[in-house]
Amino acid sequence: MSSQINVVGAGLVGSLLGLRLRQKGFDVRLYERRSDPRKVKRAEGRSINLALSHRGIGPLKAAGVYDQVAPYLIPMKGRMMHSKSADLTVQPYGKEGQHINSVPRSQLNKVLLEAAEQQNVEVFFEHQSTEVDLDMANVHFSNGNSASGDVLIGTDGAFSSVRKSMQLTDRFNFSQQYIEHGYKELHIAAINESFALDPNYLHIWPRGNFMLIALPNFDKTFTCTLFFPYEGDVSFASLRDEAQISDFFSKYFPDIPPLIPDLIHQFQNNPTASLITTKCDPWHRGKTIILGDAAHAIVPFYGQGMNSGFEDVRIFGEVGESVNWNWNELLPTYSKKRKRDADAISELALMNFVEMRDHVADPKFLRQKKLEAAIHDRFPKDWLPLYSMVTFSDMPYSEALRLGKIQGKIMQEVLEEGKDLIPEAMDFREIVERYKARK
Amino acid sequence: MSSQINVVGAGLVGSLLGLRLRQKGFDVRLYERRSDPRKVKRAEGRSINLALSHRGIGPLKAAGVYDQVAPYLIPMKGRMMHSKSADLTVQPYGKEGQHINSVPRSQLNKVLLEAAEQQNVEVFFEHQSTEVDLDMANVHFSNGNSASGDVLIGTDGAFSSVRKSMQLTDRFNFSQQYIEHGYKELHIAAINESFALDPNYLHIWPRGNFMLIALPNFDKTFTCTLFFPYEGDVSFASLRDEAQISDFFSKYFPDIPPLIPDLIHQFQNNPTASLITTKCDPWHRGKTIILGDAAHAIVPFYGQGMNSGFEDVRIFGEVGESVNWNWNELLPTYSKKRKRDADAISELALMNFVEMRDHVADPKFLRQKKLEAAIHDRFPKDWLPLYSMVTFSDMPYSEALRLGKIQGKIMQEVLEEGKDLIPEAMDFREIVERYKARK
Repeated sequence: MSSQINVVGAGLVGSLLGLRLRQKGFDVRLYERRSDPRKVKRAEGRSINLALSHRGIGPLKAAGVYDQVAPYLIPMKGRMMHSKSADLTVQPYGKEGQHINSVPRSQLNKVLLEAAEQQNVEVFFEHQSTEVDLDMANVHFSNGNSASGDVLIGTDGAFSSVRKSMQLTDRFNFSQQYIEHGYKELHIAAINESFALDPNYLHIWPRGNFMLIALPNFDKTFTCTLFFPYEGDVSFASLRDEAQISDFFSKYFPDIPPLIPDLIHQFQNNPTASLITTKCDPWHRGKTIILGDAAHAIVPFYGQGMNSGFEDVRIFGEVGESVNWNWNELLPTYSKKRKRDADAISELALMNFVEMRDHVADPKFLRQKKLEAAIHDRFPKDWLPLYSMVTFSDMPYSEALRLGKIQGKIMQEVLEEGKDLIPEAMDFREIVERYKARK
Repeated sequence: MSSQINVVGAGLVGSLLGLRLRQKGFDVRLYERRSDPRKVKRAEGRSINLALSHRGIGPLKAAGVYDQVAPYLIPMKGRMMHSKSADLTVQPYGKEGQHINSVPRSQLNKVLLEAAEQQNVEVFFEHQSTEVDLDMANVHFSNGNSASGDVLIGTDGAFSSVRKSMQLTDRFNFSQQYIEHGYKELHIAAINESFALDPNYLHIWPRGNFMLIALPNFDKTFTCTLFFPYEGDVSFASLRDEAQISDFFSKYFPDIPPLIPDLIHQFQNNPTASLITTKCDPWHRGKTIILGDAAHAIVPFYGQGMNSGFEDVRIFGEVGESVNWNWNELLPTYSKKRKRDADAISELALMNFVEMRDHVADPKFLRQKKLEAAIHDRFPKDWLPLYSMVTFSDMPYSEALRLGKIQGKIMQEVLEEGKDLIPEAMDFREIVERYKARK
């Protein structure tokens, strides 16, 4: 039980994993290419705030760090849609009391690193891995250092250097696919030390082929993200000068310019970043395995990137226990168990982009949401909406995707029959029986 | 018109492309990581013989090298199937006079290199490219040399080092997928200086989930290739000792052991190799572009890997002429035009594996082949079988795939109706009209 484990990548997943493995009694070393975020302010390459939900909260509680994270959370109980005429409508995410939580990435990472160090995980910053011997679990760093141990775990993100070593081996399946959209972050300051928008919602400006969203920050600011095509008639490429940028926001997001006085400056100076999905198979080679984004980077539209990574940590631990931490069994067993769920959330995240930017403003979609809420109200145990299965349960993602597709089909049938338009005449029991029969 | 073009990779596609560009008046340098195949006998990492057909022959003729290649060709006019009881049946590939050609890879490469050098293409061997500046069209080699020019073209195969530089750029889509099968080559010697099997057929031993094939060589030997699962009940992993290998061949390929006296030795000593499909998008970055396997490696089951690479050379030249060799236009225009066809032949090649190893022995498939031949006989211009569109025409692969799917559906309909069982009652005109209406 005194295995030496080296973890490459001390981001959210790596630091939580290191902490959990240390708590199981292993010797753990964490290597991170960047500097210590507690000492220097990082120029973030990634989004500032994230949506923490059920699948992420469980592992934080299991690690005993949730109480240190809780003060930084801002609950978001639903979507608040902003129309082109600045009208507001609300869609709750779940039942009364259910919500997701805006959390600052950097603060969460600091809490996890602090807890890991306190429990004697050794953390080494400014260690960029260059070469990995997968079978021997050895890793070399660009500063000349190297590390060896019994197991090597790569949690070094979507552009994982550990995975790159795996890509050079025979019969390693890999894909990286970018969507046609990029994103740009914009910042809404506090107004008179108050939030400029209702902080307890995730704000969405759905505009068909593109959208703007805003999440609250702990300092009463909001971080907006514009998800927008790179090319085309209305795209990053088409907004070249100040007048074009200004016209664009006036036309599509009329309530934004008053909230962001330096909008043009931000738009011209904040970077545009791309959105990648990566898949690979297998996740392990020899004594080396990858977890989190290194194994399955997804687009952010279901708010499940970090949550799925934390769930990886939970499941890795559960499989570890079940095989008595026999690494030769653990690595393939975990991969086999988890791969289909990673593929499912990857698909769900891409699907949800279309829902968020387009469907949420579609009358038929609103009818469907209403119908689903009515079914769920009457049969809360028999019909759990897809969003709830993904966000408020531990059900495997692949099962949620499978059931969600069946539900979607049944609701299409009901909507086509127009039955939802005469609610008093609707036979909810029949709908639920139809679902049960096809499950 | 005096652009300096550097081509990385002097295999089949690279050497033909270099030759053709030289013939257009450009200064061309060819860089190859291996030694000169005319001076040293290479340990082949790839298959020994290939099937040259229509799409490959045209570009060889246009380059004026077909006459030097012709003496090495062995025509194969159809498939000869070997059943488990060693019975033989024949399926012609096309009409009388149509055939594909077994050709030795190394000989073809030598002819192309020789012709390129004769026309003042500079060829540099033992130049392994390490780093590419895509925007500047500069390339560095592991021997310390480097090269710069106006355009850089990567024809360095499925594991292209030029493509690896592209993979590091933002928004580069890439996938590499291996199939569950690997392959192993086995050699059938000549018997009394004669071919051991009929040399004018491609021999297939279809066995459902796996198969053996054999292609004739110019020296009256045959090269057999076993396409076989890596894992499973009957797989490379399951054949561990001499008895198991021997039993396997006796059971599934009873006519093989008498033809290969050292079968066990060959099986145990010849390497097992994997089968990859790669896709990427875009194919160009800055002043750099990739062609052939570097851009679209496919599995070998349609015999179109080399042929599609040679067709790349033809189309690159045609697009070049159409834009007056304006490289800024040529690179994106060629990629846009050709990408969908590369995707189509990639899909066709995977589909044909199932056809070759399984369907060719299926009575229903044989009925379909017979039906299709009957339709084609009566309406040769209106109904060209998919295999012929791919193998004996210049029709874009994507169009062949599209039409082939429609044909397949119509034939399924006819077979289900059982109409083909009473040929005299069949309304061929109606079938052709159905096809025309859906085309």
